[in-house]
Amino acid sequence: METSRQGDVLFLLLGAVMVLAMHAGFAFLELGTVRKKNQVNALVKILVDFSVSTVAYFFVGYMVAYGTSFFVDAQHLALHSGVELVRFFFLMTFAAAVPAIVSGGIAERARFEPQLAATAVIVGLAYPVLEGAAWNDRFGIQALLKGWFGAPFHDFAGSVVVHAMGGWVALAAVLLLGPRANRYRKDGAISAHPPSNIPFLALGAWVLAVGWFGFNVMSAQTLDKISGLVAVNSLMAMVGGTLVAVVMGRNDPGFAYNGPLAGLVAVCAGSDLMHPVGALVVGGVAGAIFVRLFTLTQNRWKIDDVLGV
Amino acid sequence: METSRQGDVLFLLLGAVMVLAMHAGFAFLELGTVRKKNQVNALVKILVDFSVSTVAYFFVGYMVAYGTSFFVDAQHLALHSGVELVRFFFLMTFAAAVPAIVSGGIAERARFEPQLAATAVIVGLAYPVLEGAAWNDRFGIQALLKGWFGAPFHDFAGSVVVHAMGGWVALAAVLLLGPRANRYRKDGAISAHPPSNIPFLALGAWVLAVGWFGFNVMSAQTLDKISGLVAVNSLMAMVGGTLVAVVMGRNDPGFAYNGPLAGLVAVCAGSDLMHPVGALVVGGVAGAIFVRLFTLTQNRWKIDDVLGV
Amino acid sequence: METSRQGDVLFLLLGAVMVLAMHAGFAFLELGTVRKKNQVNALVKILVDFSVSTVAYFFVGYMVAYGTSFFVDAQHLALHSGVELVRFFFLMTFAAAVPAIVSGGIAERARFEPQLAATAVIVGLAYPVLEGAAWNDRFGIQALLKGWFGAPFHDFAGSVVVHAMGGWVALAAVLLLGPRANRYRKDGAISAHPPSNIPFLALGAWVLAVGWFGFNVMSAQTLDKISGLVAVNSLMAMVGGTLVAVVMGRNDPGFAYNGPLAGLVAVCAGSDLMHPVGALVVGGVAGAIFVRLFTLTQNRWKIDDVLGV
Repeated sequence: METSRQGDVLFLLLGAVMVLAMHAGFAFLELGTVRKKNQVNALVKILVDFSVSTVAYFFVGYMVAYGTSFFVDAQHLALHSGVELVRFFFLMTFAAAVPAIVSGGIAERARFEPQLAATAVIVGLAYPVLEGAAWNDRFGIQALLKGWFGAPFHDFAGSVVVHAMGGWVALAAVLLLGPRANRYRKDGAISAHPPSNIPFLALGAWVLAVGWFGFNVMSAQTLDKISGLVAVNSLMAMVGGTLVAVVMGRNDPGFAYNGPLAGLVAVCAGSDLMHPVGALVVGGVAGAIFVRLFTLTQNRWKIDDVLGV
Repeated sequence: METSRQGDVLFLLLGAVMVLAMHAGFAFLELGTVRKKNQVNALVKILVDFSVSTVAYFFVGYMVAYGTSFFVDAQHLALHSGVELVRFFFLMTFAAAVPAIVSGGIAERARFEPQLAATAVIVGLAYPVLEGAAWNDRFGIQALLKGWFGAPFHDFAGSVVVHAMGGWVALAAVLLLGPRANRYRKDGAISAHPPSNIPFLALGAWVLAVGWFGFNVMSAQTLDKISGLVAVNSLMAMVGGTLVAVVMGRNDPGFAYNGPLAGLVAVCAGSDLMHPVGALVVGGVAGAIFVRLFTLTQNRWKIDDVLGV
Repeated sequence: METSRQGDVLFLLLGAVMVLAMHAGFAFLELGTVRKKNQVNALVKILVDFSVSTVAYFFVGYMVAYGTSFFVDAQHLALHSGVELVRFFFLMTFAAAVPAIVSGGIAERARFEPQLAATAVIVGLAYPVLEGAAWNDRFGIQALLKGWFGAPFHDFAGSVVVHAMGGWVALAAVLLLGPRANRYRKDGAISAHPPSNIPFLALGAWVLAVGWFGFNVMSAQTLDKISGLVAVNSLMAMVGGTLVAVVMGRNDPGFAYNGPLAGLVAVCAGSDLMHPVGALVVGGVAGAIFVRLFTLTQNRWKIDDVLGV
């Protein structure tokens, strides 16, 4: 039984390390996507955002979501191989993903200090309330949903709890902040902002995609619940998103390398339940939505900033 | 016993994730090696090749090699922690390495669509036949070899099954495709094509070398067969290849960073059996062959394209 | 019991792979920091240094520190899942970190061959003596210290044994080598040598930070001693170092990305004992020392070369 405890600690640690690496992926994806003058800014912002998130989640957020705090002495924390601490580490890398997603969404449009303040509020409070409600049966929301719909809300690895949360906040933020200066020119045309560095964009996407297998598989949280189905569904959705984005995006490298990420975002929620062929389709649909919405906004809607891409 | 099953799933998953990361390594190694105008093309090609490989191996290739298909419902797939699925994931990253090796070999010389069609055939059919024969006793080849030579063919981690297979296909392809346009000038000289980006070439080589420890060690496929000997033999061959390539290549960075890869290719087959000092020598010989052949072709043979470097 | 042995082999292997990856981090951190003309040189140097270190530690160093050599046949080495070999692999990646740290300290100031010779002596002899004394109770040093101070020297993951050792050697080396040519101009001013490539510097720092969790957590060396406390203390020190370096360094990206490394260096020694809040403070103090010393030397002391930054 102690062996199993230590297996769980290793399992969660590997997940935490892989999702920690994803934050480097966020940094390079944003660096490659923004204009050259904002590259270094993106790098610093993601690192500092991650650091503020850690502090906010350690001192407040984790307690909001799970009712556990770490204000006992170190010997107590080290009991049971420190499994509660490593669980905090793993879940903190999820929490910090929310401001990282927001950061990409409002890239080139926000000042540093207000963004950090928003990060503290998101990771310390807003996200943990959603997280606690969805994943820890807090605040009676799941019971309510079960009463209404006959089943609780199911989101295995955070399609909604993490990624949609980040997307919603980013959407609200871009609506508030408006488009980048000179994005819409007086003659009605849109200034093109092509990715400034495709190799770094691709590097970020690769790091995110590889780390995602820690995000999804280790969401089981204990080794006895590990599932190869989650791993292969993630793979199939990644591949489905890539293929559809490449075909619909006509080999454009920006579409190609965001395709796997669209697929992986979409598959998180049901990766423990669906069939791999279903995951391939889910990923493909996500890739199609990504390319279609992006193209529409660039050409007609003029609200591409809403999508934050 | 269930614990051991889950340990196996984790073991295979870690191998799969590490070899998945190697595909990012292939992408950056090729990006850094080709001319600047072909960098982005290399990035997209490797990602799409990987995706096509996944689909081909999932629907056809894995069944050819192992007789197992995944056309049962998701609940069945999730039985036994989904160990068969994660084994597929691990072996798929091997299968996809074959077209990635070919891709490097024929870099700057092939159109996108025919190459993808070839990838589908290689990963769906050609490779699985070799794989099934060598690693799953299919088609009676191993029995035949044992009858002739007294021992079956031994290739622990794929020196021949994966790497030589990729090399043979690439060799045939470059002979068919011929040299790059203007590679041989009218005055008989060779146009130099130095690597366009050494840092990305080196990044790709590091990612490949680190991921290779998943390629080799996890080839044991079950945790009870894990072997530190495989790990250290891989290390020693990597180091041997580096040192010889650096000395023979006179500190040229392109040689230096391909040296470890030459050593690692060479050591796969016998990494479960040889002594670490032997692995150091094997790696060194591989590094020497790499530098010598490359130099010969550049200076006299004029068939450097045959080697695909 | 055999299962536990194999769990240990996997545990040490994962640590070894993560610290191996850190050497890529050293390479890119140095590449990004030095002047453009020395970038490729830095890449080759770190790779070759690593290779020389492996050979020196395999044939000499490990025996000096642990009294174990590998000159028995491969079958013997493979016994007990090759746990002794994988332990060598893990500890070798630590040993090789010493010359990598020195390399960063004397960047742009040393010739290749003498530096490699120094690497062989450091990794083959000097470091193993300190390592054996501190971590293997050799040479009676720990008994002596216990007699004098009532407790032996405690350095869980190498703040002193690895990092300070590297720093001391680098300090001695820069004092001997002197500043870079033209670093101090005739009019008394200092030639600015800003980092040549912030994205690669940041990439190196991310790779180092992520790999550090293998450095620290796997220092337990057996899975039964794994501790979530070590992991979270590492995280908190990384974050503390980042935040203080960013504030004191006024968002300078060079400071921002060296901040987490300062914190991680500082926390190694006591990461198994202190409280996460203490680790946050330790990291913050390390970040402050880093920024303050660096700034002082740039402005007044004119001995920035002493710090090797």
